[in-house]
Formats: sequence, structure tokens, C-alpha cells
Amino acid sequence: MKITKPTLLIDEEKCRNNIRLMAKKAKNNNVIFRPHFKTHQSHIVSNWFRDEGVSKITVSSVSMAKYFIEDGWYDITIAFPFNVLEINDIINISTEVALNLVLESIEVFNFLCSELTRPVNYYIKIDIGYHRTGLQLSQIDEIINLIQLGDKEDKLNFKGLLAHFGDSYNCKSENEITEVYQNSLKELLILKDKLSAYCEDIMISIGDTPTCSIINDFIGVDEIRPGNFVFYDSMQYQLGSCSFDSIAVAVACPIVAKHKERDEIVIYGGSLHLSKDYYIDSNSIKSYGIIAPYSMKWDKYFENSYVKSISQEHGIISIDKKYMDKIDIGGIVLVIPAHSCLTSNLLNDSLII
Amino acid sequence: MKITKPTLLIDEEKCRNNIRLMAKKAKNNNVIFRPHFKTHQSHIVSNWFRDEGVSKITVSSVSMAKYFIEDGWYDITIAFPFNVLEINDIINISTEVALNLVLESIEVFNFLCSELTRPVNYYIKIDIGYHRTGLQLSQIDEIINLIQLGDKEDKLNFKGLLAHFGDSYNCKSENEITEVYQNSLKELLILKDKLSAYCEDIMISIGDTPTCSIINDFIGVDEIRPGNFVFYDSMQYQLGSCSFDSIAVAVACPIVAKHKERDEIVIYGGSLHLSKDYYIDSNSIKSYGIIAPYSMKWDKYFENSYVKSISQEHGIISIDKKYMDKIDIGGIVLVIPAHSCLTSNLLNDSLII
Repeated sequence: MKITKPTLLIDEEKCRNNIRLMAKKAKNNNVIFRPHFKTHQSHIVSNWFRDEGVSKITVSSVSMAKYFIEDGWYDITIAFPFNVLEINDIINISTEVALNLVLESIEVFNFLCSELTRPVNYYIKIDIGYHRTGLQLSQIDEIINLIQLGDKEDKLNFKGLLAHFGDSYNCKSENEITEVYQNSLKELLILKDKLSAYCEDIMISIGDTPTCSIINDFIGVDEIRPGNFVFYDSMQYQLGSCSFDSIAVAVACPIVAKHKERDEIVIYGGSLHLSKDYYIDSNSIKSYGIIAPYSMKWDKYFENSYVKSISQEHGIISIDKKYMDKIDIGGIVLVIPAHSCLTSNLLNDSLII
Repeated sequence: MKITKPTLLIDEEKCRNNIRLMAKKAKNNNVIFRPHFKTHQSHIVSNWFRDEGVSKITVSSVSMAKYFIEDGWYDITIAFPFNVLEINDIINISTEVALNLVLESIEVFNFLCSELTRPVNYYIKIDIGYHRTGLQLSQIDEIINLIQLGDKEDKLNFKGLLAHFGDSYNCKSENEITEVYQNSLKELLILKDKLSAYCEDIMISIGDTPTCSIINDFIGVDEIRPGNFVFYDSMQYQLGSCSFDSIAVAVACPIVAKHKERDEIVIYGGSLHLSKDYYIDSNSIKSYGIIAPYSMKWDKYFENSYVKSISQEHGIISIDKKYMDKIDIGGIVLVIPAHSCLTSNLLNDSLII
């Protein structure tokens, strides 16, 4: 395949290695490995998980669940507050697969009781401080209520507490990520202990790529659900979740202009391809991605060079002066995207290498 | 169509009205109206332009040009620095349609001369200070060179100077936009004057939605290329480019959770649907979109309410306390997206109302 426009390159060997390492870590810790498939949304990549013995998966939407059911996956957690408007799909899906939903309110629980035709499992979403979704630790009465209601209902089986330690994304070092993990898990285990009078068997399901990548000891945890680690990206590299070598995706982008006077090059590769997600790097610079020389094995990158701004189709790269002579109009550079989940969602025609 | 997941609503009447007004403004000013189709990327919407007499269009990629050629458009400017890797497509396209390319370097000019089989037109991209692409005003020797080379070449016909007054997007008021327009055009006309010794007939092609929406008098301009105005969005509303009533798109998003304690609701509608683009509103708040009650005619919005953060599938809305009782889990709210071009690119299954 000749590359003529922005193209996602997926390094199969690196992906398989990333999957293998995480699967092994889960096994060593005796925790269930239920990877999040929102990162790749791909039947092909999902088969690489199968090859490592994965049979339980996480998705973030009903549409994504349907996509993977088509491909034979049969044990699925939809890690998103249940959307009651999609009840008909859920009823259909529940006849085919073992389904785990995520709840945080009595009204959604009651709605499901009245509508479901077959049993599904549910986790209660707990907000450990990230304040995106979930019941807070202080809302223990609601949590107890949601557990006790499950005891009386055949159609809804309580499985456990589900949390996302999203604050790990705001960390600046491995130590900070470890601290977020330890503090968050501690809170969750205190909660579990308080709830033990109401339920003996409460699973603890957690999962974000920074903590799952850095932490080696998952004592107290029953299940991990990381997603991004299959690809990683420059945001994860910046966070310290991965080495540069383990980043398994890059976007090959045509070089369309050079502006030597300001040490910039322009690529065909914009928000339609990379997404508008960015991170603040260690020099306090907003970066939409790291730049690497074009190669099917990106093992080094251009120092002090990054995607500094982005339009619908344009990427503006600030490049270290010393590399300018290596840059040719009509050539290609690689962008290691800031956020691989969004980039892979945008670039469907990927090239697996 | 029952809405069960994030769905782009397109108000045909508002779109047609937006198109009509811009077409009329162009006609009154005797300038060519060459709208940018990157905003909608839709055969259906493009027909609404046809109905207003539009026959010349702008696109931002070769892929987009091919998409609209399929639908019978035959006079197309690809307003992006020419990507030499797509030369084969350009050769094919040039046999079918009148094609205008955008150049900013001698090397790309020479490449085209050696490869093209049929004539195409070219504009020289001028950088008026936005520093995305283009030759700067000070690079007059290169500009003259690019014009003179065209005199000697049958395959490349020089048409004029093309600019994008992108600084208009950083403005905070109509006055500031007017100032950007006037200063930018003045520079462009001074350049044109300097170039008149080398070419008598130099078109001035400009186009960004803020200036084209606010300016009524296009003296000195030959062609306008706005795109976003067909839909507008909350960023344009914030800039003062449009009234709220003229925003022609909204994303209907299911409400999946309420967090009264922090005046927030959670919607199914994240970066996979809205994009990660945002603007800073007049209260210095980062906003991914304005919130409106669910209706097919969004004529009012919730005050002091906005999408405050966004994940892959989640949108977190900060909502004024007074509206909380109107919000039900299982209901729908509208998000007027920050940037309609990116949102419409993500949501293919739109509902035209």
C-alpha cells in the first residue's frame, strides 16, 4: 500500500507484546483481565487478545457491544452509565451474551427491572474523586440500597463495585500515579468493608492504563479493565505509563510545506485524522503528538519536535532546526498521536505492519 | 427515527437560509461565492447550495474533491497546500473538472509541471499573519517567481492570491473581527499592487466564516470561500458571527446520570461525537458546547450551562441549578457543538429536520 494521505500504522508485534505483558500481569496477580476495547474498536486487533486467552471484554457503548458480539465475544461489560433509551438493544443482547451493566441510580435500576426479559449483571459505579460519573463514597445509603434491591430481583445480579481512577491522567510522574492508585484503592476497599454486612461477595473492578501499566501488585482487586495500553500513545509516554518502544501506533503524514524561518513544517494530518486531543508536555508545551522519522519501526523520535497546532486537515509541526534538512516536501513523517483511542476511531483504513 | 444515541440534527430551513444570505451578500458585492464544503461533506447539503445557484466549490482534500465530483460538481478549489503524493488522483481529476490548486513553493510548482497531463489553475497561498501556511508578504521574490513561472507554462495557469484570515477566530468582538479583516485585506491589496507589474489579472480569494459573516462590503475582493456558516456553531455564536437562531445543527444526547450535588449531568455524547474542540467563553470558561432543551426548533438555550468536559463517550454538563428539575435520566438534551465541522464529520447518521 502506497501511503498518499494520513494513514494509521499499527505494529502488530508491539500490540501483541503489550497484550501479553498485561495478560501476564493479571494472571500473576490472579485478577480477571477484561480489557477495554474502545481503544481499537477492531475485530482484527480483538483476535490478538483472543490469542492471549482473553474471553471477557469491556466496551463503552451498546453499539460497540453489538460490533464485538458479531465477532463472537460473549462476556461483555458496558462500562458506561446505562442509557435507558437503548433498552431494546439490551434486551436483544441479553439473550445472546453474558452482560454486565453499570448503574448509579435507583431509577435506572427500577427501569431495568420492569423492562428486562432475561437476567443481566450489574456493577455499581463508584466515584473515587474523578467526578465524572458514579456514586460518591459518602452516598453509602444509596449504594446499600442498590445492593439490597438486587437481592430481591432475579433479573439483576449485583457483581461489585466498578471504578475508574481517572485522576491518574493528571499525574506528572510514576510516583504520583502510584499514589493515586493506592489512595483510590484504599477508599474502595474501605467502602467494600462497610458493605460486607450487606453482601459477602463484592468484586472490585478497576481500570485505567496509567495505573494498570505502572502498578505490579493488585492486592484487593478482582478485575482490571485497561484499554489504551494495547496501542499506548504520546500522552501515555509523557505520563510514564510506557516506553517509547512499546507505542504500537503512528500516523504516517505527508509533508506539504516547510517554513524554515520559523522551524515549522506543515503536514496533511489534522483534527480529522489525529483528533483535537493534546497533552501538556514536560516543557509546559501543548502537544498534539510526538514526531518521528518515517519508518515501519519507529524506535526513535525527533527531539524538541511536536505537533503544535491543528486544523481540520493541517498539522503544524514545530521541529528542531537540526532536522529541517531531513524534511522534504513530498516526504512523510510519523506522528505518534496524543490520544490513540481517538485517532484510531478517526482513521479506519489502518495499515497493520 | 427514535433517538437513542448521540444524533446530529440538521435544520434544513436554517441551512438554506444561511446559504441564501451568504449567496446574496456575495451577489450584492459582485464577488464569486465559492463555499467551502469541508463543513458538511454531504451530497444532500451540497444540493441546497445548488438550489441557490452555487456552481463553484472549495474543499480541503483530494478525497473530498473526489466525493463531490461523484455528485457532479465540476469547478473545485482544493484549498490546502498541494500534496505531491496524491499526484495520480490529481491527474485523473484534472481530466474531468476545472481544478484550482494552492501552491506556496517552487519545488511543488516544478513537480506539477513535470507530472500534469492537462492544465490546472493555481493560487499562491499568502500568509497574512496567521502563520499556518503560505508565503509571507516579505517573500515577494518567491511570489513573483511563482507568477512568472506560470507565464511560461501551459499546464499551470496562475489565478491569484488565496488567503485565510484565521486570526478572526481569536477575536472577542465584531469590532476586532472587522479590524482583522480590514488590516489583512489591506496587506493583500498592497501586495497585489506590487505584483501588478508582473500580472494584470490577479484574483483575491479570501474566506473564513467570522469575517464573511460580519463584513458587508467586499471591495477589493474577487471571491469568498466561507464554509462553517452553513451550520454555524457555539464557537461562531460566541465570536459574534451569527445569532443563536441561525445555528443549524445540534446534537441530541441521551441523559444518563444526574449529579445534583455538583450541578452536573452526564450525557451519552463525548469526543467520538462532538470532537474535542472547545472555545473559551465570555466568562473565561472552557466550553465544548452550549446546552439547549430538546426540541426540533432550538430557539433558546439553558443559561450558564455548558459541556465542561468530555471523554470518549461521556459529556459532563455543568448546568444552572434552576434547570435541574427539567432534566430527567432517560431524557434528551441538545448540545450546540463548539465546532460543527468536526462534529458533522464524526456523526454520519444525521437527521435532517
